[in-house]
Amino acid sequence: MNCWINIDKNSDFSIYNLPFGIFSVDNSEKKIGIAIGDLIIDLSQLSALGLFKTIDFDYQVLKSNYLNDFISLGKEITVELRHLIQKELCNEKSILKNNLQVFINKKDAKMHLPVKVGDYTDFYSSMEHARNIGTMFRDPKNALLPNWKHLPVGYHGRASSIIVSGHDIHRPKGQVVLPQSSEPVFDQSNRVDFELEMGFIIGKKTKLGESISTEKAEEFIFGKVLFNDWSARDIQKWEYIPLGPFLAKSFASSISPWVVTMEALEPFKIQGPKQEPKVLPYLNFSGNKNYDINLEVIVRPENSVETVVSKTNFKYMYWNMFQQLAHHTVNGCNVNIGDMMASGTISGKNTNSYGSMLELSWAGTKPVILKDGSSRKFIQDNDTVIMRGYCQKGDMRVGFGEVRTKLLKAL
Amino acid sequence: MNCWINIDKNSDFSIYNLPFGIFSVDNSEKKIGIAIGDLIIDLSQLSALGLFKTIDFDYQVLKSNYLNDFISLGKEITVELRHLIQKELCNEKSILKNNLQVFINKKDAKMHLPVKVGDYTDFYSSMEHARNIGTMFRDPKNALLPNWKHLPVGYHGRASSIIVSGHDIHRPKGQVVLPQSSEPVFDQSNRVDFELEMGFIIGKKTKLGESISTEKAEEFIFGKVLFNDWSARDIQKWEYIPLGPFLAKSFASSISPWVVTMEALEPFKIQGPKQEPKVLPYLNFSGNKNYDINLEVIVRPENSVETVVSKTNFKYMYWNMFQQLAHHTVNGCNVNIGDMMASGTISGKNTNSYGSMLELSWAGTKPVILKDGSSRKFIQDNDTVIMRGYCQKGDMRVGFGEVRTKLLKAL
Repeated sequence: MNCWINIDKNSDFSIYNLPFGIFSVDNSEKKIGIAIGDLIIDLSQLSALGLFKTIDFDYQVLKSNYLNDFISLGKEITVELRHLIQKELCNEKSILKNNLQVFINKKDAKMHLPVKVGDYTDFYSSMEHARNIGTMFRDPKNALLPNWKHLPVGYHGRASSIIVSGHDIHRPKGQVVLPQSSEPVFDQSNRVDFELEMGFIIGKKTKLGESISTEKAEEFIFGKVLFNDWSARDIQKWEYIPLGPFLAKSFASSISPWVVTMEALEPFKIQGPKQEPKVLPYLNFSGNKNYDINLEVIVRPENSVETVVSKTNFKYMYWNMFQQLAHHTVNGCNVNIGDMMASGTISGKNTNSYGSMLELSWAGTKPVILKDGSSRKFIQDNDTVIMRGYCQKGDMRVGFGEVRTKLLKAL
Repeated sequence: MNCWINIDKNSDFSIYNLPFGIFSVDNSEKKIGIAIGDLIIDLSQLSALGLFKTIDFDYQVLKSNYLNDFISLGKEITVELRHLIQKELCNEKSILKNNLQVFINKKDAKMHLPVKVGDYTDFYSSMEHARNIGTMFRDPKNALLPNWKHLPVGYHGRASSIIVSGHDIHRPKGQVVLPQSSEPVFDQSNRVDFELEMGFIIGKKTKLGESISTEKAEEFIFGKVLFNDWSARDIQKWEYIPLGPFLAKSFASSISPWVVTMEALEPFKIQGPKQEPKVLPYLNFSGNKNYDINLEVIVRPENSVETVVSKTNFKYMYWNMFQQLAHHTVNGCNVNIGDMMASGTISGKNTNSYGSMLELSWAGTKPVILKDGSSRKFIQDNDTVIMRGYCQKGDMRVGFGEVRTKLLKAL
């Protein structure tokens, strides 16, 4: 596109992206913004300029603490608004170009949690990850459990502790069983880990009893974020049988602040892995339903340099989002706007493409060496974990920015 | 107490109770009410009469879709308001007595979900239930898993599908593995079950990183409801390893509409079972922390009579609510007002005191005979499941009313 706005070609926030987020400046009210390059467009200021006069909605919604009410307007409105801004950024005679006060420097803004999350579900949809876990902890010859290739395994997570990038967390405490012991002690977790995931945000609600087909699923998804599903492996190991992970996960999950829309991701659709055995009819789909999104995880020790510890791609996921949503609702479970569904740890085939320290260090047996010479089996106090992701096709780049979280010592 | 209001001595909603709920009349706005006998007191009408002039809060909160904002006022306000009404109902010169229009007949009102549930957690805290399940599906000699007596096992549930008493549900569909097969098929569940539970509602929020001690836990609990954790046993069996129950539970959970406050339940505190081995210090507590609440489950086939299929008591719970909340937050997980925490299935020692059909029919091997001569292994289409509960001490009765849900055929 030929636009008057000049964006660095390596920026995640190109003219093709235009993701939505919640920002504030100088602790004043929260508002909805769109990211472009290093800038944020203040949508409520645009509405005051009359830019949205062709779109019928209550402009007050642009001054909200969360995107939920905006998303509730429906894609007819939100997609049109995003297109209108895209055109304005490329039209020499645009109102926008003559009102540069609506642009805010990202450096001057604080980003907030983009949505009020009602329910949060975490899937387990990377075959490589599930196979690694099964190989490590169960039987390498039967690493995948019998149900794994028949349904996208998932479980309910804790919504209250989902935080936005930039929010530091503390190492959690809980019950752990030390080596050589069978009794638990109360201690800080010594196996704090990240999980590289992506989350999608529900954009349209259903009623209890309704199901969403794989065909219709995309209509129900507003957009995507990077998702770090923080995990305490020692707490998890002791607590999770028989009802699943609980306190090992609920101390925090971090997300990136900019919600990249499904429309921006459309050009990056790609075929996923072949599913064999054949799935049941309600999980069938046609067309390309995976997404080609480059992902990486960085560990940065205190006062040190960044080391990329994993590079992988979202396209490797065995179960796609539309199958996940069809499965989630096939029993009539209702979804609400703002619900978050995470992919599960995204691991690739190679040992440097695994999405958790548990896999990268193979349960602590193969420490990962960082650029500063230090090594890691799991995450140490004052380490910062950063996840980044972007799509690229020729000159077209659509990225997620980053989710960055520092692990502080236990309270 | 000697009161001008005349309440049947068998009513759950005595002068000692005064629970809070959300009601509407003739599809008009939702409001907060207090139940007394067969009546509802409209609190917003009371505020208009100036009855609350000694309590400083925004009366608009009494016209809300949920109790959350009211609960947010804090116990200083909500407890005082409840006491004031208790006094009014027993004072011959009360304003209330001369303004009988503030009383609404329950028959004329529709009850709604009392709280907007943020997160919902389900525990597994009845030893008899956990032992029954372990005996049926694992090893009778080691029925309890190693972690069970060290921590209150719990998992995250689905908040969106929590519904209020009176809301019919449909038999869920999903993946099940039929007998003599190892491959799943898509079918309706043929093992739909209730789980008799009680839920407590969080009344005070914490910040991420904070923990609640067993000593302080009661301050963070607003009140309790009856809770039917609907379960599809065949779906559960196939899906739940390794991450816990998901679609087997998320199609619906039903609760009673009146939230009985912790203050109303205070006289019914009782000692719980001895915990052996000793719990870790953060789970220690002193005093009576269980509650003596009589519970029963009724099955009523279409156009037939009620049969009580189970009678038990909440006092048998191994882990108490204060331990549950201390455990839930020991890792720093934050809680919000309106969060729901359910007990897990409440089973007693005797075969007629089990809290699920799975246990009552011993996995379908011993059908339960109903009064009309029909038998049940699990719940059939058009059966209504009713749970009732009350505390009694001499003339003092404090009850929960009921949670009633009809299971319709699959959609």
